[in-house]
Parts: sequence; C-alpha cells; structure tokens
Amino acid sequence: MSQVASVWKGGGRRIHMQEVGTRDGLQMESAFVPTDDKIALVNALSATGLAKIEVTSFTSPTAIPALKDAEIVMREIERRPGVVYTALVPNLRGAERAIEARTDELNLVMSVSETHNLANLRMTREQSFAALAQVIALAQSAQVAVNVSLSCVFGCPMEGDVAEAEVFDYVQRFAQLGVGGVTLCDTTGMAHPAQVAGIVSAVRLRWSALQTTLHFHNTRGMGLANVLASIDAGADRFDASLGGLGGCPYAPGASGNVCSEEIVHALQCMGYDTGVDLSALVAAAGRLPALIGHDIPSQIAKAGPRWALHPVPADFEAIRARAMAR
Amino acid sequence: MSQVASVWKGGGRRIHMQEVGTRDGLQMESAFVPTDDKIALVNALSATGLAKIEVTSFTSPTAIPALKDAEIVMREIERRPGVVYTALVPNLRGAERAIEARTDELNLVMSVSETHNLANLRMTREQSFAALAQVIALAQSAQVAVNVSLSCVFGCPMEGDVAEAEVFDYVQRFAQLGVGGVTLCDTTGMAHPAQVAGIVSAVRLRWSALQTTLHFHNTRGMGLANVLASIDAGADRFDASLGGLGGCPYAPGASGNVCSEEIVHALQCMGYDTGVDLSALVAAAGRLPALIGHDIPSQIAKAGPRWALHPVPADFEAIRARAMAR
Repeated sequence: MSQVASVWKGGGRRIHMQEVGTRDGLQMESAFVPTDDKIALVNALSATGLAKIEVTSFTSPTAIPALKDAEIVMREIERRPGVVYTALVPNLRGAERAIEARTDELNLVMSVSETHNLANLRMTREQSFAALAQVIALAQSAQVAVNVSLSCVFGCPMEGDVAEAEVFDYVQRFAQLGVGGVTLCDTTGMAHPAQVAGIVSAVRLRWSALQTTLHFHNTRGMGLANVLASIDAGADRFDASLGGLGGCPYAPGASGNVCSEEIVHALQCMGYDTGVDLSALVAAAGRLPALIGHDIPSQIAKAGPRWALHPVPADFEAIRARAMAR
Repeated sequence: MSQVASVWKGGGRRIHMQEVGTRDGLQMESAFVPTDDKIALVNALSATGLAKIEVTSFTSPTAIPALKDAEIVMREIERRPGVVYTALVPNLRGAERAIEARTDELNLVMSVSETHNLANLRMTREQSFAALAQVIALAQSAQVAVNVSLSCVFGCPMEGDVAEAEVFDYVQRFAQLGVGGVTLCDTTGMAHPAQVAGIVSAVRLRWSALQTTLHFHNTRGMGLANVLASIDAGADRFDASLGGLGGCPYAPGASGNVCSEEIVHALQCMGYDTGVDLSALVAAAGRLPALIGHDIPSQIAKAGPRWALHPVPADFEAIRARAMAR
C-alpha cells in the first residue's frame, strides 16, 4: 500500500471560496427576486467569510431579466473589506456599466469549445477573444481587475473533450493580455478527477502567478471529488453556489453548480480553513426557498452538518431497560 | 507543489462493486415490488458485472413486509458464476432461512455505537455480538460464508464520533471468529475523507486477509470523495445502490446510499476497472421508477454519462453563417 495522499487531511490549509449563486444561480430562476432581497442576500453572504461574491451580471436586461437590476444591486450592497465583489460582463457596454457601478472585478466569459461558443455567444472563439481583449483594455485603463472564465474546459456537451492544448492556448493568450485570474469552468459537469488533476497541475505549474479558480458542476455527482483533485494539484480557489442553485440546460433535473455549503462543510470536516462560517452560510441558504419559490438541492440544508446530533428515541430508556433485563 | 496523488488515475486497477439496492433500497420503499419483478431485477443486475448482490433480507416479514418474499427471490434468481449472492440476516432464524434458500453469504449487522444498536436492534452491543457469534457458528457448520456489517463506524447520529479503538475492537473480535469479510458502514452519511483515509488505512494494514467493504451514504454529498479516499487507503470493494435508492431516516429528503451508476461512471472516467457495464447498469436502474412509483435520485440517469453528447441547436448553421459574416 502506498502512502495515503495528503489531500484528505487539510491541516489548516487555506482554501478561498467564491460565491456564484447570486449570479449563476439566480439567472436560472423564473421568479424575479426583488432588488432589496438580492442586496440583503449579498450583505448576508459578505458576512460569512467568502473570498469573492459574483454579485450579478451586466448583461442585457432583456436577455436576462432576472438580473436587470444589476446597477442598483452593485451600488447598494455593503462592501466588506477583504471581499471581492465581481460581476459577469459580456461585452464593452456591460463593462462600462459594471465599472460605473464600482464593481471590483469584471468576470469575462468565453468558451474553449468552438461549437459551444457559437451556440451560446453567437460568435466564433476568435471573435469572442477579440471582443474580450477590448474589454480587458478598457478595464485596465480604468484600473479594474479582470478575471476570465473559460467554459467547457473539461468537455463540451456537443463536441466532447476539448484538446488540452487549446485550453492552455487560451490561458496563455489571456495571461499575455495581463488578466489577474482565470477560471477553469466545468460548464456541464463533464469533469472527472483524473482529467482535473492533469489540467490543474499543468495550469498551476505554467501560470503560477495567475489566480486560478475552479468552477465545477455536480451534474454527474463528481463535484467534491473534482474539488479535492484540484486541491491536490495545487488549486486553492473555488466557485460554488449557495443552496446548490443553478441547473444544467442539457440535463433537466440534474444538479448544477456545486453547493457552497456542501463544499465548505466537507472541507471543514477535513481540516481545511475556508474562512467561512458554515452556520452563517446555511442561514443565508435558508433565505432562498422564500425568494425563489422552491426547495433548494443543498444536502447540508436537508441533513445538517455531521456534528448536528439527533435525540435518542423517546422510549430509549425503556428499550435499554428491556435489553438489560434479558 | 507536491506530487499529485495516484488515486485520481485508475490505471486499470480493479474495484469490486457490490449492489445493495435490492435490499437496502427496496426495504425503504412503501410500494411492494412484485416478486417476479424483483427476480427479474436481480437477474438483470447479475449480467452487469457486479461482484456481489445483496439480494434481500431474511428479516421478519412483519418487520419488513417489502422483503417478505426473501425465500422465493433467493431461490428463483439465476445464479451467474462469479457473482456472490448475499442477504442480510438479523438472527439465527434468518440464518436458517437464508442457508435453506442457498444464499452464498450471510451479511450480519450490528452497530459499533451502543446508542444506535439499542435504538435500532433493541440490544446492547454485547448482546448483539453474542447473538451474531451463534449465527457465525451456524454458518460455519453449514460452510456458508459470513460478512459482518458494522453500522456507525464513521459516527453515530445520536452519539457523534465513535472511538476508533472501539471500531477496531469489533473488527478484531469478528476476525477472530473467522468471518470472511467486514463492511465498514457510514450509516447516516457522517463519514468524511480525512477520517475515512485514517480508518481504512488502519483496517487494511491490520486485517489485510479480511475482505473489507466500504458502505457510504451520500447524505452530505461526500460519497464519491469517501470512495476515493478509501481506494487511496487500500480498499477495493464498495457497496452502492442502484438509482441511488435508499434514504436516511434522520434526514428526510436527503440522499441515502451512494448511487451505483454514479460511482461506476466516475471510476470508469478515471480509468478504474469496475468490471461493470455502465449502460447495462443504467438500463437496470431504468426499471426502478415503474417498480417503486417515483423518480430515482441517480444523476447519471438524469444527465447520462459524460460521453453522451448532445446535438447542436437546430439553427446552428445559421448562427455560424451570421457569425462568419461579421
């Protein structure tokens, strides 16, 4: 038997948790969450110890009406020192709006799959890259940080696997443009730990100065395993969604983003330091059903943390007495 | 950055999958699955490449009416060479019935938590141990294999953590009685990878001749991660439940047993050799909703394997043409 891997025991290692539920989660919901409730939710999340919160998306209000209040939300949340308030930005217009609303970081997105990029963004990858390069230049002139989220890094639901060389090529090109961070996104839950360990190791090794985030979906039940494979490969920064909000358009009924409180709970059990107060996070998740009008997939919301014990049966003493009398 | 662990890449290593859905799953269902359907389901499972199938439980038919047809099912299934047909046996009477029905292996159960054993089995642990010792003697005289499932190895929902020394003490006492295998059960989903790596390493090291099975629940989303921590610690044998059947009485609505097709899918993606034909397993899971009258939690049933690709949008060529014309 070989030595057991060190990844299973956190030993106090720091992991940075980034919340995407207010953007990636809420944009999928049919109910419009009132602006004040969104602000209150972000404020509650700010107090939990999360490293970053993707507050909203500066997309066209007709494209995503659920987030049509992006400006007001971003302007009116309370900014807690140490928390980075980021927002999705699809184009120059969105970047102008986001910068105007004092967004800490612009999160740009394109897919490393040509088919997925065309199907979702209506542009070739090269057209997206050129457009994002303009956004990056604008952000740099305004001295606002930029992160680029690359979709389908671990596979495209239409193309299948994307060559790692193509993934690395886009990481390199964005690194050359001077972005601060890159998020490797498992957009439809195709990532598996063998692949994750390989890709994350390579990215951490080649671009060690780049802030690298892993964004996993739990569509096929591999979310936490992929987080652990990433940590083992040198990553320390993860997106997750409060309550497990967010779905997958290719798999109705399946899980979407990994659930923030499930990941924080697991990492805490294992001795990692996420900096997150789990009970505050669970309390924030508890606001969701009333806001979105349905139950949340979070297993921790249903089962509680492993240290939340249950009472013995009401007749336990009688059971014991009968047993002892045998 | 340290060396990435070898556990992420299976490299063809053999993992033995054991199905518990027909016992642990069906006993939780309110619908009675007709005997012929149970037999057909076990026969379908036999053809998938599973190492072991827990066919039924020789419990009192009044206690678990869902499995009151234990004898007929065990007698009438087709026995495929290489598959071990096991059954849960609570006591001497159950053992006699199981042996009479030509069960390959008796699976006995007690809890390492005194409170859980009293609450569930109405006996102290010592009373259970003494009773199981009699069952083991009977099985040995009949030359029938015995496995002992220890509940609450990774924590008791009422007591909390159980001292590892107590767990190891029961493993040792059953090993001394000559049982062929021990299953370490995470009865209510309290196990986490740090704990699992430690306990499984210790058990594999001290009792290397004992067949060791890990039985995880996904109650808090840590099932697959616990499987991988176990493999890293030397285990190669896992219980799982078709479709993810089975719940947790302490957490209504939460997941129960880890889902067979999710574990097989993940391990196959990672390059492990489970010997299981995933599509045959998914087809078997597809029988369940009609039998039990409700949807199954299986994520693979909902999302398909990662290699099942989706068609491009119907207007994809028009999208591409418009993009190229820019």
